[in-house]
Amino acid sequence: MKPSIPSSAINRRGLLSTLAVLPAFGTVLTESAEAETTPPGGVLPSWNDGPAKQAIVDFVRATTDQASPKFVPPNERIAEFDQDGTLWVEHPVYTQFMYCLERVGPLVKEKPALKDREPFSTVLSGDREAIAKMSMRDLFEILLATQSWMTVEEFSADVRQWLATAKHPRWKRPYTELVYQPMLEVLSYLRANGYKTFIATGGSNSFVREYSESVYGIPPEQVAGTSQPVKYGYDKDQRPVLTWEPKLVLDNLEAGKIENFWLEYGCRPNAAFGNSSSDDQQMLEFVKAGSGARLSGLVQHDDATREYAYVPAQELPETKIGTLSQAMYDMAKKQDWIIISMKNDWKRIFTFE
Amino acid sequence: MKPSIPSSAINRRGLLSTLAVLPAFGTVLTESAEAETTPPGGVLPSWNDGPAKQAIVDFVRATTDQASPKFVPPNERIAEFDQDGTLWVEHPVYTQFMYCLERVGPLVKEKPALKDREPFSTVLSGDREAIAKMSMRDLFEILLATQSWMTVEEFSADVRQWLATAKHPRWKRPYTELVYQPMLEVLSYLRANGYKTFIATGGSNSFVREYSESVYGIPPEQVAGTSQPVKYGYDKDQRPVLTWEPKLVLDNLEAGKIENFWLEYGCRPNAAFGNSSSDDQQMLEFVKAGSGARLSGLVQHDDATREYAYVPAQELPETKIGTLSQAMYDMAKKQDWIIISMKNDWKRIFTFE
Repeated sequence: MKPSIPSSAINRRGLLSTLAVLPAFGTVLTESAEAETTPPGGVLPSWNDGPAKQAIVDFVRATTDQASPKFVPPNERIAEFDQDGTLWVEHPVYTQFMYCLERVGPLVKEKPALKDREPFSTVLSGDREAIAKMSMRDLFEILLATQSWMTVEEFSADVRQWLATAKHPRWKRPYTELVYQPMLEVLSYLRANGYKTFIATGGSNSFVREYSESVYGIPPEQVAGTSQPVKYGYDKDQRPVLTWEPKLVLDNLEAGKIENFWLEYGCRPNAAFGNSSSDDQQMLEFVKAGSGARLSGLVQHDDATREYAYVPAQELPETKIGTLSQAMYDMAKKQDWIIISMKNDWKRIFTFE
Repeated sequence: MKPSIPSSAINRRGLLSTLAVLPAFGTVLTESAEAETTPPGGVLPSWNDGPAKQAIVDFVRATTDQASPKFVPPNERIAEFDQDGTLWVEHPVYTQFMYCLERVGPLVKEKPALKDREPFSTVLSGDREAIAKMSMRDLFEILLATQSWMTVEEFSADVRQWLATAKHPRWKRPYTELVYQPMLEVLSYLRANGYKTFIATGGSNSFVREYSESVYGIPPEQVAGTSQPVKYGYDKDQRPVLTWEPKLVLDNLEAGKIENFWLEYGCRPNAAFGNSSSDDQQMLEFVKAGSGARLSGLVQHDDATREYAYVPAQELPETKIGTLSQAMYDMAKKQDWIIISMKNDWKRIFTFE
């Protein structure tokens, strides 16, 4: 079912009128402009001036100025980012699942019984439309079948090798280049102002950690994701090894993204950015409900030319990922999240443009 | 059953002879003395000169000197610490279980059916000997009964209040003062040299995070522990809340401490410190088995006067916690872990001494 947001409901005028009734933002800006640290390259250079950029700058100024009632001590400054659709492209299929799908062929050679079993037979059919319609449960079954029984080092090496050669079907570039330049600037800007930046992803922590530092400047230990358990054992030379097991122990889908963030890091972030109704809603709601200055940002995929328009554009096949529901849009408006229009707020999408 | 290590087996001579055959340590020391950063207060001032202190200093020098073949880039410097018995006193009962045991009375008032059920009836009996003999399974049942159904903020406030008033039965001081000064110095020394310090505890992450920053300088997000799941929901005012559930999702006992460290942080630490055969053995073994310079340190409780002598001293009642097995001692010797004698290596145990 397609979400029913009328295209007129998602625009900057609506957001502008909301912000206009918030005098606090302007006040903070005037009082504390000198407290903020400008990263090399300037403050959010790929962002157009507008309420989204302004809200990010106001948040940083309010929380880093010691004279501000919303000042946050440096050791408590935490920002959480969804990855797929928020930091990099998630269409036509999540990058990690591209990796998994390519491993189904070799897997079936090893275990021929899987050939006639769903969801493996659909993957082997090569029917792109059918693959795109697979449920999250199907995707996770494939993930567990292709990402298990390897030591942590073997898996790491395999992911790195794949990332070095795989290319996105539309841009013909490595996936690690399909990162949103404006969001990289948000990460740098926050870090320049003392924030620790974290990823909370529905994907596997093990996959994202292979490139989080080089691509986002986020160290592996600050990546929370859906996780398989790790099992201690010994290899043939009696050396201790850790092996990924074919189960889920931490499920970061839906509310899991903020539940497990607390489980792993024990705090409510001051800022969070997401894009998906299914998996980011609770995270953004919970962050915004905290005391003091809190920033929840919703990336809206509305640029069919430079990236994708998910909703309400008709040009893409129906997809289960990343759609923005009416309920989430209403929540965003009601709770004063910032809505980030890729089309209007971002001067450019990618670094290579 | 008491471990059967002869008291003569645990001494510094054994360690000295092991280190004497490792020429690499001396070489590195000479070449790179200038690369290391001395923290305020000096390098390990509460440590006596000896092989344990020397091994820590050599490790830091080898991994921070760019000219060393064992140099570790700053963003990869990770050190992991067990808590109970390694950073602070764990006798006569783990501090966290003191907290839980004191909550059994109020709990039974709310749920009278528990009064005649084990292990609750043993706790209510006040029989210290019987309480000290409870199994880890009993302790975890009490933990889940007393640490659940609270929002994360309610639990946090309750722990903080308890820590502010509870006192250790022997020293009559707050538990947070019963921290080993020499280990605080290891933490500072490692951090001064670019290491990120983490706790990996068999206790609850939620409990330890309440004081990890103020007591150890370790931020909450760098504390991994046994963990209950967190559940998203809404309070009576429809505000989103996170609540601790009465289950275990991450079990940090035995190999769990290093399995879950990888699950949460995605790396093999360069250094680790522990003390318990049951819960630190795999962590220390795995860390030491990595390539390059690796430091595994085993704190040995052999000071019956200033703290406790677990093994082989007879003066304490038999206990299940913190004992050092013959197998672990043999492993430590064979794999060149450093064995830290509280009696011989530490000038003082506590800051207040």
